[in-house]
Amino acid sequence: MGDPRGIGPEVVIKAMARFSRQKVYLPLVLGDFNILAATVQNLGCKLKVMEVEEGTREFQPESVPVLSLSHFPGGKPPADIPSQESSRAAFAYVAKAADLALTGKVEAIVTGPVSKEAISGAGIPFRGHTEYLAEESGTKEFVMMLAGKKLKVALVTTHLPLRKVFGLLQVERIRSVIEITHQGLRDCFNIRSPRIAVAGLNPHAGENGLFGEEESTISRAIRQVSSKELFVSGPWPADSLFYRAKQGEFDAVVCMYHDQGLIPLKLLHFDDAVNITLGLPFIRTSVDHGVAYDIAGKNIASSRSMEAAIQLAAQMAAKKRKS
Amino acid sequence: MGDPRGIGPEVVIKAMARFSRQKVYLPLVLGDFNILAATVQNLGCKLKVMEVEEGTREFQPESVPVLSLSHFPGGKPPADIPSQESSRAAFAYVAKAADLALTGKVEAIVTGPVSKEAISGAGIPFRGHTEYLAEESGTKEFVMMLAGKKLKVALVTTHLPLRKVFGLLQVERIRSVIEITHQGLRDCFNIRSPRIAVAGLNPHAGENGLFGEEESTISRAIRQVSSKELFVSGPWPADSLFYRAKQGEFDAVVCMYHDQGLIPLKLLHFDDAVNITLGLPFIRTSVDHGVAYDIAGKNIASSRSMEAAIQLAAQMAAKKRKS
Repeated sequence: MGDPRGIGPEVVIKAMARFSRQKVYLPLVLGDFNILAATVQNLGCKLKVMEVEEGTREFQPESVPVLSLSHFPGGKPPADIPSQESSRAAFAYVAKAADLALTGKVEAIVTGPVSKEAISGAGIPFRGHTEYLAEESGTKEFVMMLAGKKLKVALVTTHLPLRKVFGLLQVERIRSVIEITHQGLRDCFNIRSPRIAVAGLNPHAGENGLFGEEESTISRAIRQVSSKELFVSGPWPADSLFYRAKQGEFDAVVCMYHDQGLIPLKLLHFDDAVNITLGLPFIRTSVDHGVAYDIAGKNIASSRSMEAAIQLAAQMAAKKRKS
Repeated sequence: MGDPRGIGPEVVIKAMARFSRQKVYLPLVLGDFNILAATVQNLGCKLKVMEVEEGTREFQPESVPVLSLSHFPGGKPPADIPSQESSRAAFAYVAKAADLALTGKVEAIVTGPVSKEAISGAGIPFRGHTEYLAEESGTKEFVMMLAGKKLKVALVTTHLPLRKVFGLLQVERIRSVIEITHQGLRDCFNIRSPRIAVAGLNPHAGENGLFGEEESTISRAIRQVSSKELFVSGPWPADSLFYRAKQGEFDAVVCMYHDQGLIPLKLLHFDDAVNITLGLPFIRTSVDHGVAYDIAGKNIASSRSMEAAIQLAAQMAAKKRKS
């Protein structure tokens, strides 16, 4: 459900309403019964919020089955919930989701938006959903991919100060991001022979050493991993690369840092991209937006990213079940 | 004309053909007579290339007046010109343009694409047109702006390794970029009260210190320079900022590093943006693309950026003359 103070409850309910009569998946919302019930009322939609136990596996059309892990007094406007309580609850939903996925009780996790800052502020060390789920599952190499129809980006580094990026651009890491991205494009999007482009770090991809040296590390990684089965090229100047990808030249772009990938992604897919964590032992997708406290409770949030995240997770689970 | 081996000659001729019967400006091409004449022939267009002296101020429809500063044997395919000679010639055109502008003999400079790497390789210390023109004119504070219809970006730092950006993000520099951008939007685009957004450096603009500290410097600069006459806000998370600017919320975005601005700019304006140097004692615009050696001589280069650069320079000169 994400942070109770954010737009998570609203986008969850809106997405559930959209899928409420389709048996594409068997949902279980980890969140707060009171808040979800109040959200249904605010939105004036016809869903029935039902508190359920962990093992429930029954599909009821037009219902929202909730495993309620917090109990905020109902009807409260989101901003009135104390930030620390809200953050601890948001964290509890994620922790429970990880537990259910790791013990095979659910087939996929879809996460709503939380505030890393608020969770850290509540005394819980937390660098993000992705990092947390990787740690809990003992996953060393994982990749955050943001995917829209026109552009897909995979990140070598994610939520850290830009200053710290340089030390993390190692051949091994770049290689493994390329390999995981290749596999992810096959698994998640059914692309047989994905064409992967790798972005340079510096302006004009360093213009052959004139503006920086990191491109030689990136080149080495590309050379090592490139094969007949794995089409990968670069390092390309980042400024023109995303236009080329959008025009269809590449299936995904491997990016060196967060904003290198997120700037073009959000420009093309402001509210309909999905965040996928590749490399985990379970399926995990997420909305690609934040808590948006400023519009929470106003019924104006777009649920397109949540819908896309649910659909993709359901597709991936169906595919995994078959294989 | 830009690098003789690149697409400069082609885009110059195509743009001149477009404007050949309109008296919007009095052109003077600094370049190579032979190459421009061969380009006209290759393109099969009807322009007449004429070698002229420095002082010529006569408008002849359908003609391309050239101050020929190099003399490569005509008809040679671009790739056959030795790189070092080509680079020295390209540099000579820019040096002459700076000289003419500084002595008031021309009202504006429009520059074609050169390769910084090739010019450096020819033994000439050269970090880019913009930096060169600033040095020659003794300009300390200048700003590179890339402008398209949907998005305009101004850069705090430009052509240098990403590693070196951190040391240059000083309050004074950021303040002056905001001020010069404000003035530039008024002078070049006739925007009375420009709305300027400033991007953060780190993911999520540092999420209040969680992912970096540079945002506090940026905030200080914004506070110092913000006034009733100068609307400026930020530091905003860069990932969603360019979408907001594109939607019309801001007239320009001040960016901390090259690719932060160029990635979204090129995604929205791949071949029709103009590069403007604000803060110089003369008007200077430029194409926003590179030499594109791979397509030089193939007659497939787009001249949209060159046309836009010429038009904007001519408009700015007309406005300056009036004031």
